[in-house]
Amino acid sequence: MSTTATDLVGDLRAALGDDLLVTDPDLVGGYVRDQSRLTEHGTPLAVVAPRSTDDVAAALRWAHAHAVPVVTRGAGSGLVGGANAVDGGLVLTLHRMDRIVEVDVAGARAVVQPGVITGDLRAAVAAHGLFYPPDPGSVAFCSIGGNVATNAGGMCCVKYGVTGDYVLALEAVLPDGRVVHTGRLPVKGVAGYDLTSLLVGSEGTLAVVTEVTLRLLPAPTTPGTLVASFTGLTAAGAFVAEVAAAGITPSMLELMDSTTVTAVNAMAGMGLDEGVVLVLAQCDGPGATADLAVLEKAAERHGAVDVAVSSDAEEAAMLLEARRIALTALERVAADTGRQWLLDDVAVPRERMVELVAAIERIAADHDLTIGVFGHAGDGNLHPTLLYTDETVALAAFDAITAAALAMGGTVTGEHGVGRLKRVWLGRELDPVADELHTGVKRVFDPTGILNPGVVR
Amino acid sequence: MSTTATDLVGDLRAALGDDLLVTDPDLVGGYVRDQSRLTEHGTPLAVVAPRSTDDVAAALRWAHAHAVPVVTRGAGSGLVGGANAVDGGLVLTLHRMDRIVEVDVAGARAVVQPGVITGDLRAAVAAHGLFYPPDPGSVAFCSIGGNVATNAGGMCCVKYGVTGDYVLALEAVLPDGRVVHTGRLPVKGVAGYDLTSLLVGSEGTLAVVTEVTLRLLPAPTTPGTLVASFTGLTAAGAFVAEVAAAGITPSMLELMDSTTVTAVNAMAGMGLDEGVVLVLAQCDGPGATADLAVLEKAAERHGAVDVAVSSDAEEAAMLLEARRIALTALERVAADTGRQWLLDDVAVPRERMVELVAAIERIAADHDLTIGVFGHAGDGNLHPTLLYTDETVALAAFDAITAAALAMGGTVTGEHGVGRLKRVWLGRELDPVADELHTGVKRVFDPTGILNPGVVR
Repeated sequence: MSTTATDLVGDLRAALGDDLLVTDPDLVGGYVRDQSRLTEHGTPLAVVAPRSTDDVAAALRWAHAHAVPVVTRGAGSGLVGGANAVDGGLVLTLHRMDRIVEVDVAGARAVVQPGVITGDLRAAVAAHGLFYPPDPGSVAFCSIGGNVATNAGGMCCVKYGVTGDYVLALEAVLPDGRVVHTGRLPVKGVAGYDLTSLLVGSEGTLAVVTEVTLRLLPAPTTPGTLVASFTGLTAAGAFVAEVAAAGITPSMLELMDSTTVTAVNAMAGMGLDEGVVLVLAQCDGPGATADLAVLEKAAERHGAVDVAVSSDAEEAAMLLEARRIALTALERVAADTGRQWLLDDVAVPRERMVELVAAIERIAADHDLTIGVFGHAGDGNLHPTLLYTDETVALAAFDAITAAALAMGGTVTGEHGVGRLKRVWLGRELDPVADELHTGVKRVFDPTGILNPGVVR
Repeated sequence: MSTTATDLVGDLRAALGDDLLVTDPDLVGGYVRDQSRLTEHGTPLAVVAPRSTDDVAAALRWAHAHAVPVVTRGAGSGLVGGANAVDGGLVLTLHRMDRIVEVDVAGARAVVQPGVITGDLRAAVAAHGLFYPPDPGSVAFCSIGGNVATNAGGMCCVKYGVTGDYVLALEAVLPDGRVVHTGRLPVKGVAGYDLTSLLVGSEGTLAVVTEVTLRLLPAPTTPGTLVASFTGLTAAGAFVAEVAAAGITPSMLELMDSTTVTAVNAMAGMGLDEGVVLVLAQCDGPGATADLAVLEKAAERHGAVDVAVSSDAEEAAMLLEARRIALTALERVAADTGRQWLLDDVAVPRERMVELVAAIERIAADHDLTIGVFGHAGDGNLHPTLLYTDETVALAAFDAITAAALAMGGTVTGEHGVGRLKRVWLGRELDPVADELHTGVKRVFDPTGILNPGVVR
């Protein structure tokens, strides 16, 4: 570490106190990047682990005064390099701010610190008969703060929407240390600009969120589950398209191609049918049984090899787990076969999902690559996962998939965010004037540009 | 008109062409204000009625070059002075841009110009088996553009949310004439800052929206309707609170106090029970019948004088119409009794609605005023309507109601917007730092401050 860096750390230590700092290089190493691949990360000056909003404000004031960049980090489960350290900057890890401050049962709201693990919050409110829908694949280890930063989705979205749909109010700290409160408690309200929605999904580039007030729903009925297998992605996609056309809104509508199913079986011995594309659907609420019967018929009409409907909670849990471990299972296949993996996250208008799937199959063939396809079919949001040995080929295929989604009126990121991985692609998606507005908005919140430089703006 | 003004109008005419200008003072008079009371309006330089995005851009470029303020106007049905002309400014009325550009049935989306009447859009998509939920009280004569500008709500919100929940993408023109596109077609997407949500509800202060892409739902089942009468607002409020606690999400949950019911009967001879508070609920979807049975029991438990459940569409339409004409009926009572009226729009956390109702009753007694209370009980969003002779007394009561809502963790506007009527109150609701961010955001979009000066920021 240079003399200047040592001086800076000393100064930081004096400002924040020893207890909030992690400077041991061995420990720091655990905080320098998220779970993305092919994204850069730097060597931070220090890792700061605040315990309170005041601590966050103190750290930001210090960083602002010294023009030191700050990368905020939730649980580090991101997939686009949105929490990767930059050289000479601070990593602000919020894992110690993990308190569920309040569950207001009568008001159906929860107030939480950003470090609360999403699955823990879901369990805590379920104990009161309430439901916090957002359920990213990483629900067991991702944090609410990270979910807010990326406006995370998950399997619930087809019926229940994304994280932002549940954020009523935020407390956040601006880069100069000022604390701001946005939003409100009532479910309706139009006083002023929607700064809450502006902060949601801003990937730590505008402010550091230190408290989140979430809207909760009444617990839904136990869902019924349908699993249908198809000989190809196109038939599966056509079935998915028919679900929406039939006016049915399942509470889950997921897809796994045969590559993914084989990987899941290999990892967890789940005994899923292989060589087929699986579609998993759940319906909850009083119309669930009727809806599932309609879906069952539709699956048969679209040539499903096998369809099973079950109200068995254990079987449903097993199928969900199969879907949830898709990425991990594909990662393991890559490791076992000496390959690397790279995950994409694209979304297209729902009615064009079949086209997207066809494009991915074509791109896999053109680049002679294995691409495992799984994702939130009901939202048109897929996660094609490339298994590769040659990085250049992988990046070409990755770009081809992203370009294909964009050309279909889609988006370069459905739910993972832009981070460092998709920054070039954001420029391609945004209208040039919208791009200029991004720069302007960034300057309002973070005039000196210390927050997460290299991400979004 | 001064020489300078005449010169300016000549210049504007040369820039835009005769056809887009309304300068006849008699006609201009119809465009100078919305339907609010006790809000100021000025004398505009001219009214511009564009036919296209290009026309809007030309008008804004001209205004920007000449530092002339611009007030954008939808159908003029606003209730807070958000579309009131300012002296020497342009009124940009978008009523000619009233085309439903596309209804994409497979994609469940509609693309519309801002001047489309909300009710017309609802009917147009219903013809395709689709549903556009937002239904402000003024649904028959308000415009989508105005709904977007105020993030309008209505009776659907308790289940289906507000206008912003259906806006996928926007085309808008910045004050300097640049056209910007925000948002995207997929239902999920997190690429960049949420500029769409920032524009929704910005009341014409950031940009002029020229095209709106809306998400549609499958048509719901015909709802069942419950009407319950209570001897007082407190019992009615307690019933409403129980609905949420029972985990039931009605598709409508409205309240009218006895003052309002009497006014409605007087206007439309609907034969509603008088001297009681009415709660109207609707439930749709496959669980509707079961849900209504639960609500019926709950109403009885809370001492309802009368409860009736009906699946008769005509009876439901009559009850909805009764609720829809509440404001007009109270206006008529005011006119018939030599009084004026003033409408408030406050929302509180749902569980505090009973408290809000009690506060309004107390304020009415304290100020010796008739206050008709009606509104979206299921959202905690009420529209207390003051009938008064003394403006000072009315304003004192209005302020007392707004202050009471704010003190309950509520908001000074649930769905009508800030406009000119609530500008002082916005300052009281916003955190000072959020207030500064509003100013900053305004400057990014409208650096010279020509868009709707005196509103929001």
